[in-house]
Amino acid sequence: MARAPESGSDVHRQRHRAVMETAARLICEKGYEAASVQDIAAACGLTKAGLYYYIRSKEDLLLEIMSYGMDVFEERVLLPVLAIADPVERLKACMEKNIHLVTEGWSKEVTIILHEHETLTGAARRQINARKKRYVHFLEASFDEAMREGRIRRVEPRVAAFSFLGMVLWIYKWFRPDGKIPADRLAAEMQDLFFGGLEIVPAAPPRPEAKRRARKAPARRAAARASA
Amino acid sequence: MARAPESGSDVHRQRHRAVMETAARLICEKGYEAASVQDIAAACGLTKAGLYYYIRSKEDLLLEIMSYGMDVFEERVLLPVLAIADPVERLKACMEKNIHLVTEGWSKEVTIILHEHETLTGAARRQINARKKRYVHFLEASFDEAMREGRIRRVEPRVAAFSFLGMVLWIYKWFRPDGKIPADRLAAEMQDLFFGGLEIVPAAPPRPEAKRRARKAPARRAAARASA
Repeated sequence: MARAPESGSDVHRQRHRAVMETAARLICEKGYEAASVQDIAAACGLTKAGLYYYIRSKEDLLLEIMSYGMDVFEERVLLPVLAIADPVERLKACMEKNIHLVTEGWSKEVTIILHEHETLTGAARRQINARKKRYVHFLEASFDEAMREGRIRRVEPRVAAFSFLGMVLWIYKWFRPDGKIPADRLAAEMQDLFFGGLEIVPAAPPRPEAKRRARKAPARRAAARASA
Repeated sequence: MARAPESGSDVHRQRHRAVMETAARLICEKGYEAASVQDIAAACGLTKAGLYYYIRSKEDLLLEIMSYGMDVFEERVLLPVLAIADPVERLKACMEKNIHLVTEGWSKEVTIILHEHETLTGAARRQINARKKRYVHFLEASFDEAMREGRIRRVEPRVAAFSFLGMVLWIYKWFRPDGKIPADRLAAEMQDLFFGGLEIVPAAPPRPEAKRRARKAPARRAAARASA
């Protein structure tokens, strides 16, 4: 299918995305202190003034990168799964989408800045932390719901939520796109590992052999009584 | 029980430990570039010359902190579990000990330096990475052994190893010693979450009721034949 010509807003989004990812890479490479606005502008192919179209100040840049990371996360992972009625299916879809985001959705450096940089302070820090906490609460509430509905065995929702997060987010530290395990298989394996044991499998229907015996039993009991 | 008087070597170890942890805290607080050797010495209550008794150079300090972290990890987590014959019990004990190390074994900053600092280069980097890889291989081999012995269901050992690590190491990002979930309960919950579903539970012995019926069956069958 031919793609519709990109609108001005699409072009702007793509440009913004490229600037955020280039800045993230440079900050991870050089360190936040050492990477100057001039360096970042040059790496983005922009003048310093051009870069200030995207950021208000260097201090603002980390917040911008983290906000960009949270925007993409919410758009690609959280929003598409919110409406899934079954809590276990919701959590499984969420894990799959989050794994794909970490492995393919953006540069590794965005994840590093999102989860390792502690440089934000004050209102900016609270803003990002509140968005991260919303995700933790969504996971906790889904595990809690799954328990109440008898879909999983008893877990501590907070431990389950952070275990889910730990498994999924640690991926950026070891995953290699050219490695032996492609992202699709990784997602399937982790879903299986995490949920395979959690889910309460409905009891299998009795085997035909067992059914036949069950039907015969009254006759046998009657026979036993008759011969007693 | 009264503790034996500390030997000179114990005192040296404790002093070394305190210096490493204080340096780790300062580097995390100020950033590696901004924290000077003078700052670190002062925070440790040492002269600059005194600090150089523990480190050869500032560049050497990160390697020293990481090596200290790996020494403590190997001593408290890896070595005590290596001799456990059953691979599932070995992995469970390893998870418990690693959780206790992350929550109580040292300052959070040592974990941060061990897992977030990428500043090492060349031989120093290879040295630390080799020690980390040894842990991953130990986990992979234990999962593989557990599968071959029919103790767990089929998993991809590499995914299982990194999932284990992600769950356990992500803890430093969210765990609060004064929070609702104490370390002991956290360890038990995570073991249950991770292994509860993995382990192949041996079939339960037949219930007494079932045994009685089984013993009666031949008599019943004989009676049924007699009355046919």
